[in-house]
Amino acid sequence: MTRPLAVAVAGLGTVGAGVLSVLRTNAELIAARAGRPIAVTAVSARERSRDRGVPLAGLRWYDDPVAIAADPAVEVVVECIGGSDGPAKALVEAAIAAGKPVVTANKALLAVHGAALARAAEVRGVALAFEAAVAGGIPAIKGIREGLAANRMQRLAGILNGTCNYILTTMRERGREFAEALAEAQKLGYAEADPSFDIDGVDAAHKLAILAAIAFGRPVDFSAVHVEGIREVSALDIKLAEEMGYRIKLLGIAKREESGISTRVHPCMVPAGAPIARVDGVFNAVVAEGDFVGRIVMEGRGAGAGPTASAIVADLVDIARGRFTPVFGAESAALDPTPAIPMERHAGCYYLRLMVVDRPGVIADVTGVLRDHAISLESMLQRGRAPGEAVPVVLITHDTGEAAVRHALKQIEALDAVLEKPALIRIEPL
Amino acid sequence: MTRPLAVAVAGLGTVGAGVLSVLRTNAELIAARAGRPIAVTAVSARERSRDRGVPLAGLRWYDDPVAIAADPAVEVVVECIGGSDGPAKALVEAAIAAGKPVVTANKALLAVHGAALARAAEVRGVALAFEAAVAGGIPAIKGIREGLAANRMQRLAGILNGTCNYILTTMRERGREFAEALAEAQKLGYAEADPSFDIDGVDAAHKLAILAAIAFGRPVDFSAVHVEGIREVSALDIKLAEEMGYRIKLLGIAKREESGISTRVHPCMVPAGAPIARVDGVFNAVVAEGDFVGRIVMEGRGAGAGPTASAIVADLVDIARGRFTPVFGAESAALDPTPAIPMERHAGCYYLRLMVVDRPGVIADVTGVLRDHAISLESMLQRGRAPGEAVPVVLITHDTGEAAVRHALKQIEALDAVLEKPALIRIEPL
Repeated sequence: MTRPLAVAVAGLGTVGAGVLSVLRTNAELIAARAGRPIAVTAVSARERSRDRGVPLAGLRWYDDPVAIAADPAVEVVVECIGGSDGPAKALVEAAIAAGKPVVTANKALLAVHGAALARAAEVRGVALAFEAAVAGGIPAIKGIREGLAANRMQRLAGILNGTCNYILTTMRERGREFAEALAEAQKLGYAEADPSFDIDGVDAAHKLAILAAIAFGRPVDFSAVHVEGIREVSALDIKLAEEMGYRIKLLGIAKREESGISTRVHPCMVPAGAPIARVDGVFNAVVAEGDFVGRIVMEGRGAGAGPTASAIVADLVDIARGRFTPVFGAESAALDPTPAIPMERHAGCYYLRLMVVDRPGVIADVTGVLRDHAISLESMLQRGRAPGEAVPVVLITHDTGEAAVRHALKQIEALDAVLEKPALIRIEPL
Repeated sequence: MTRPLAVAVAGLGTVGAGVLSVLRTNAELIAARAGRPIAVTAVSARERSRDRGVPLAGLRWYDDPVAIAADPAVEVVVECIGGSDGPAKALVEAAIAAGKPVVTANKALLAVHGAALARAAEVRGVALAFEAAVAGGIPAIKGIREGLAANRMQRLAGILNGTCNYILTTMRERGREFAEALAEAQKLGYAEADPSFDIDGVDAAHKLAILAAIAFGRPVDFSAVHVEGIREVSALDIKLAEEMGYRIKLLGIAKREESGISTRVHPCMVPAGAPIARVDGVFNAVVAEGDFVGRIVMEGRGAGAGPTASAIVADLVDIARGRFTPVFGAESAALDPTPAIPMERHAGCYYLRLMVVDRPGVIADVTGVLRDHAISLESMLQRGRAPGEAVPVVLITHDTGEAAVRHALKQIEALDAVLEKPALIRIEPL
């Protein structure tokens, strides 16, 4: 067996420490699969004294992560710092400039700066690997970018954020409101103290942007992703969805349409029988549809030290073996220039739920607005009778354009009898 | 872009013709992902005149597939002939001997001769790729062998044969008996005229042997796989399973136990809520459990021209890119010598279903035999009352050894009041 591959790990939080732990625990079998041992020889973190549950003796310590890139004895840099800018970006840029392969779990960095980083890596001819950035331990990047390489991909859909999925699952299973379920997720460590990154859909949007880039072979374009989170999903809508045979999931969806690629993250109603509807709790899932392979579903843990480190070490094994894949599946010159489609041009079926005063003429007013916008209804359902009181009314539209629905909803919201902001959830035929 | 990779396809049945079709249809994007065009330049098949739906003009034709290996203009050989021996084996051996990478969809060949072929490929330093041999379009080989390379695998379970899964699904959904469901599958083209290879579990066992080899990093060992098919599964047992919250699936299961690796294919009762229980019809699924990643589930079409060709072309893209992985994930010298565990040493819970004469004393006789074999029961259920007539009796055991159950069942079968061969289905806690 040859000389070990010398790896530096920058950032020793849960994930960074997890990488050290995996490489120690399974050293022998990883060496067999990599064709050579993989050894961490240098690390960087802010606090030197903290106990991270893994021995650090004998490893070169860097207070400044960027300095790792210049260490001539480091062959590969693993970036576990996080954040789209700051030291994570500086380190990845420096490592690529120094001609060193980089492995990162950093979805924000990839989503925001991935196009430029990919070009830099291509110029230097080094690997920039990021299996851990999307869907944790699920080999989704490898599965799609290499495993489905023969296919023109048509659609991708994923449950990409475990925090949101845990909250929505708790709301459904225990009839909780959003705020309660969030508090519970925070107590269990499934949501951060400041949860906005997860619950506002930003994290899922980072991951979707990356998945869409590799599936459709185009530079990552986070700015094109339409993003909505789950703050406005109510227990009532989850219950009504259940009664109609749907589940509400926060999905990231990328689709090849006639005029380009659409990418969006928002709460969706999916048929309760669809495989993705049953992916509950902190689990993630990715559905990919290709022209020859049909539909592939991959499911597993989307976060946590073990699954994330598993993905990072898989990238290290690829590098040790010399297995190389361009960042977005093909060299820049061969990437697909298909344009992005803005959300205003989305079309589909909508679930609209109003809270109205139960009195004659209200439904006529509401449906009149829809008619004026040429929106046709598949069904309308008033839940309960309470003359003069507030009752929920559900409207399910036929295939309709996003812009028309938005305009109509603004007018409906302004009606006297409509008591609060209407709920809008798109129905996805998965 | 560089010179095309010259590929020969031997065998132009559904799969071989599918490969030509995929390479034509998606030529441009495959070239982008492969870094160079992939061009079929030679083919071999028995009948020259048959219309296969793909143009063959300009391709060199070989009547003898083995001769392809000697064609100096062929760089990669794709074997789509099938069969564990005969021309498929001769061609793969000749291609490896000639130093040419081989891509094959041939699970029988890999399962039976894979250990020797892997050694030959290693000696010559060429790739022997077989993504299409297991689970059709699902990137299961790549997902496990590369994507989960950081993990010590603990268990694998899979629905690996679409024919059996279609038959079992039809039996459950429409209350059909096995023979009727088989006839229907044959009419729809989901089962062959001679279906024994599928329904007796041999095809699933070939695939399981291959999956176990790559997951546990050991040479493939088909002879160690315990194999039972679905001929004896009855509509009654499917109905009883459903009532108890289970579904009956033909699973291939490989497990790391204290003393070695067990591999078995047989009908299983799995909890109706398990992801794999909901994989119906001709779909396949693979569940893999690793020490760090936890449980990963992959699901998709397990057969058909499109999915199988998708997997073959993915292997070609790997070869074009120079991405190389040893056949069983590591070089021979680094493979795991863990022994195989025979089925007699299996332990688990069992569903036993008897057809007995409804009269006093019968249950005492049956449970007496179980007591004599130290088999303890979790539950016993007699369905209906019909004094003097035949009634089904279901026994669910606690954790029990296979050998004891087999001995006990033989004695129970010999009891006067037991009217037919008892049904035995193992319960799998997925």
